[in-house]
Amino acid sequence: MSSPDPTGPARPVRAPRSLRVDVEDSVIVPLPTSYPASLLGRLRDVTDLRALPEEDLPGLAEEIRDVLVSTVTRTGGHLGSNLGVVELTIALHRVFSSPEDAIVFDTGHQSYVHKLLTGRGPHFEQLRRPGGLSGYPSRAESPHDLVENSHASAALSYADGLSRGFALAPGRHRHVVAVVGDGALTGGMCWEALNNIATSDRAVVIVLNDNGRSYAPTIGAVGRHLAELRGETGRFRLSVFENLGISYVGPVDGHDLGQLDGALRKARALCRPVVVHCVTTKGKGHEPAETDAVDRLHTVPPAPTGASTTTPARPAWTSVFADEVVRLGRDRPDLVCLSAAMLRPTGLHRFAEEFPERTIDVGIAEQHAVSCAAGLAMAGMHPVLAVYSTFLTRAVDQVLLDVALHGLPVTFVLDRAGVTGDDGPSHHGMWDLSLLQAVPGLRIAAPRDGARLARLLAESVATDGPTALRFPRGTPGPDVPELRTEGGVDVLHETGRRDVLLVTVGPLAATGVRAALKLDEHGIGVTVCDPRWVSPPDRALVDLAARHRLVVSVEDNVVVGGVGTRLAQTVTAAGVPTPVHALGLPTEFLPHSPRADILRRHRLDAAGLVRTITALAEA
Amino acid sequence: MSSPDPTGPARPVRAPRSLRVDVEDSVIVPLPTSYPASLLGRLRDVTDLRALPEEDLPGLAEEIRDVLVSTVTRTGGHLGSNLGVVELTIALHRVFSSPEDAIVFDTGHQSYVHKLLTGRGPHFEQLRRPGGLSGYPSRAESPHDLVENSHASAALSYADGLSRGFALAPGRHRHVVAVVGDGALTGGMCWEALNNIATSDRAVVIVLNDNGRSYAPTIGAVGRHLAELRGETGRFRLSVFENLGISYVGPVDGHDLGQLDGALRKARALCRPVVVHCVTTKGKGHEPAETDAVDRLHTVPPAPTGASTTTPARPAWTSVFADEVVRLGRDRPDLVCLSAAMLRPTGLHRFAEEFPERTIDVGIAEQHAVSCAAGLAMAGMHPVLAVYSTFLTRAVDQVLLDVALHGLPVTFVLDRAGVTGDDGPSHHGMWDLSLLQAVPGLRIAAPRDGARLARLLAESVATDGPTALRFPRGTPGPDVPELRTEGGVDVLHETGRRDVLLVTVGPLAATGVRAALKLDEHGIGVTVCDPRWVSPPDRALVDLAARHRLVVSVEDNVVVGGVGTRLAQTVTAAGVPTPVHALGLPTEFLPHSPRADILRRHRLDAAGLVRTITALAEA
Repeated sequence: MSSPDPTGPARPVRAPRSLRVDVEDSVIVPLPTSYPASLLGRLRDVTDLRALPEEDLPGLAEEIRDVLVSTVTRTGGHLGSNLGVVELTIALHRVFSSPEDAIVFDTGHQSYVHKLLTGRGPHFEQLRRPGGLSGYPSRAESPHDLVENSHASAALSYADGLSRGFALAPGRHRHVVAVVGDGALTGGMCWEALNNIATSDRAVVIVLNDNGRSYAPTIGAVGRHLAELRGETGRFRLSVFENLGISYVGPVDGHDLGQLDGALRKARALCRPVVVHCVTTKGKGHEPAETDAVDRLHTVPPAPTGASTTTPARPAWTSVFADEVVRLGRDRPDLVCLSAAMLRPTGLHRFAEEFPERTIDVGIAEQHAVSCAAGLAMAGMHPVLAVYSTFLTRAVDQVLLDVALHGLPVTFVLDRAGVTGDDGPSHHGMWDLSLLQAVPGLRIAAPRDGARLARLLAESVATDGPTALRFPRGTPGPDVPELRTEGGVDVLHETGRRDVLLVTVGPLAATGVRAALKLDEHGIGVTVCDPRWVSPPDRALVDLAARHRLVVSVEDNVVVGGVGTRLAQTVTAAGVPTPVHALGLPTEFLPHSPRADILRRHRLDAAGLVRTITALAEA
Repeated sequence: MSSPDPTGPARPVRAPRSLRVDVEDSVIVPLPTSYPASLLGRLRDVTDLRALPEEDLPGLAEEIRDVLVSTVTRTGGHLGSNLGVVELTIALHRVFSSPEDAIVFDTGHQSYVHKLLTGRGPHFEQLRRPGGLSGYPSRAESPHDLVENSHASAALSYADGLSRGFALAPGRHRHVVAVVGDGALTGGMCWEALNNIATSDRAVVIVLNDNGRSYAPTIGAVGRHLAELRGETGRFRLSVFENLGISYVGPVDGHDLGQLDGALRKARALCRPVVVHCVTTKGKGHEPAETDAVDRLHTVPPAPTGASTTTPARPAWTSVFADEVVRLGRDRPDLVCLSAAMLRPTGLHRFAEEFPERTIDVGIAEQHAVSCAAGLAMAGMHPVLAVYSTFLTRAVDQVLLDVALHGLPVTFVLDRAGVTGDDGPSHHGMWDLSLLQAVPGLRIAAPRDGARLARLLAESVATDGPTALRFPRGTPGPDVPELRTEGGVDVLHETGRRDVLLVTVGPLAATGVRAALKLDEHGIGVTVCDPRWVSPPDRALVDLAARHRLVVSVEDNVVVGGVGTRLAQTVTAAGVPTPVHALGLPTEFLPHSPRADILRRHRLDAAGLVRTITALAEA
């Protein structure tokens, strides 16, 4: 960050790194000698792609699909969505001149083909590996990548801003292209952007990649309207887009390179806001994906390695929640479950099978999901809203002012909370505790194991007010029994010496107990406790703190505004002089890496805790 | 909050307080003897309204307008919007049976007429007074009030949830009515809700109160589309709503009681999702409002009382910002200003007058505003996005993952930060510090006076990364000069004794200096400092903390996750044993009251600080 100098001369208009590079200067990666002398292998960059004869394109598409399938089934990643945009991405890069023209991919997981075509083929084998290519666009990787955030429905807003900026900046006319899925159109942000784009005369091309689904088939009226448009040969009525004043081109077959080329060139020539409606098939060209009934192989896991350990027989966190909410639903006719285009990823498909009339999928629309839950609660229901932690950030205002302001009994279930791993910075659920702790009347639980998840979920839905449960990706370890309970706090480990009180959040309890056993050997007596309801802090924690020399809290959330800082203030405000050291994640964006690696790097594993606590205790 | 009992029997379906009451049991307020024997005075409740002969209704409307004008010009409040919905609200309460049928007002400031018709006429004189009627719907006031949150565009989501809940609950069929302005339709939440409502067969009546504006004329394609619909007598094309599968009734004259009655009864009989397009005039029937060019007297201030003090000659915070950003814009051709339907309330209309091509109003669409700013920054601009603090909560995800993840130079200007006062719980800007502190790479400034606002704004737009400035409602006090500067920290007051370091946030600096002078007399030596950039904490604060016995921080934000808690963790992590007591607001929703009263109640005035610090220093 440059040091502020308000008195200095006017700064020249700043071209950010990713747009500063001319096409000619684009990153050219030297090919390793082993890289196949294929069509794809001959493309050093998009300029080579543009020079390729048209008749070579089907072969190129075939090669790309081969690379996608062979690589992604090995590394894990987003398979179905990328197989669906092979021809579309080729056509985009032949018609538009990235990075001079800006191409923004909504939910960047559909950018693998774009990566292969913009000089990153030789590195594709290291997709999603630590230090390798990101599974999303990355500004550090290429000037062709603009948007790293993977949350849906934002691309049109970027496009509006980019086109406004290009119009103001001196220089050549530059096109802006936003590639957006039909599923993303269920998100309100798209309509806020369309409302702005539609009345402009700027050259914004909205490429609607319509495969009829996000994870699951697209919800609601927008999806139905697109299906109508897809089905009509001669259209007698206007599309929604035309109603708003945006030109409409299509529908075109999104796997027909000729049709795509024609439609995109037409859109480009219009030099005004236009939607190009491309109909694609998710998983196209790979039979297991095309026929997968669940989600067209939206994502696939990495192939097991030779050194793979035996997977534990325990069910995953998601699965424990899924079973438990079904069990609760049998006794509670007022229990209603909601998700935002993620019934299956959150396990709610099981609830949907048994209670279809009490299951609601609102589409990719977290804001609506939360306020719809508020309405349900006002009508006497107890809504359980399950989303990934990272996506609830979209609806902080609604949690605060639609649910909590009215004290409504809504249970938020945050799957994939904390460090998630391979999906990179915008998928970590490392802010939820900070954002939710400031919400008046909201209680937050963090189960340490599967048994506690079941129990805390039951307590949540029996609470006459808002609650949130957060648990991580993956599978819980073995249950961690308590020695005793003090107030609402489970004491998991203690010795004769009361040197350190270690307050753990969720599954870091097991890590804490392991660290405490080691610290015992060093002569440092650690009491490990799990508050279960981690916010607001249990009064018993203040009493426990008063009986120790030092308090250490540990959570896989940013430290700023986290559970530890609130505990520290509560202890200080109570006049207890014991210092509280809050451990957690730094206020930084974390690059993609396995969860265990990230926890280790930030000393949130047992060895890290031992080191930190030893240093603090000996200070 | 009931104590969780997961083992107990299934709870019966819970009807929340506000829907539990039958029409017959509605609150009937005894009339004070002085209440005029008018039509309005004879209405004890909506049942009386329904019994009123049709020919009395125009007279009733006239009386209501008289009461609105005479009361609101005295108490202050939302005048223009309520004058516009007099006939509409009468018609709604005659056609639908609240509270059996649920009526949800979007942006509840348009609920004054509703309050007058639901038994609250006798209390209307105390509108917005401490202990009097809220300026928004209030569940504590009446079973006819459902939604207290005043943020726009949420009503359709509540309606979706309420209608889903009613469909699941046993009992009579209940209609759901959402009253939403055309301005609110620029917010994405509405479209998320429409996408869900449109494919249902539930009886949801969307009353579109189309006056062509929010504060200012409605932005964008939606507004243009509604204007087309308003202008067409015989319509040959479908509306956006019909394209999505929602029935459309209208347009009707929203001041013609007969037309309204017919349209609403038609919509009610449809028993499916329907938009009733009502064209109204903001400020109707009150000439000064109808002809006000700015915002049709959207809000008016309270009348000056006899005991009014002389207003200081200093310009308001908003005005200081407005002038300064124009000045900066003259030197910086890359400076672009954005707001979300609030150019004038944030003072950006002055920038718009001088630099219309560099001013963007995106409509009520905070999410889009933030990500559009990200796009602008990617295109080389430096966007300055000015909104009220309370509304940025709508876009936390976008600040985090669209702006900060990319490290983009966007300046967020948060007007009305902290305690705002009369507008009630959803207008306080008391969460921004907690929400924004957790955003990596974002620096937050809180100017203590007008001079510092100008200076910090200049520093912000010279920063190559995201920044936020927060300042309160009203007018800054006299400038508070610094004695000296340590690191980036201004030391405002110090004595020979270093008992307490008082770290103040923004304009609480002056309060802190006043308290320190008093504490000097008590023999407690207080050093008062203003970090200017309040987050992340300046390193100098740690050194200063080490030289004092006690640190006290004070901010008008919730304590949880606030500047004080971060400072405390930083001090503890640095191994400095000085305890840090963070003072601020409790994690509660604060009822409407003047700003000074609320600060006093929470001991954030000088006298409160003296009491708290004395107690801490003597402990």
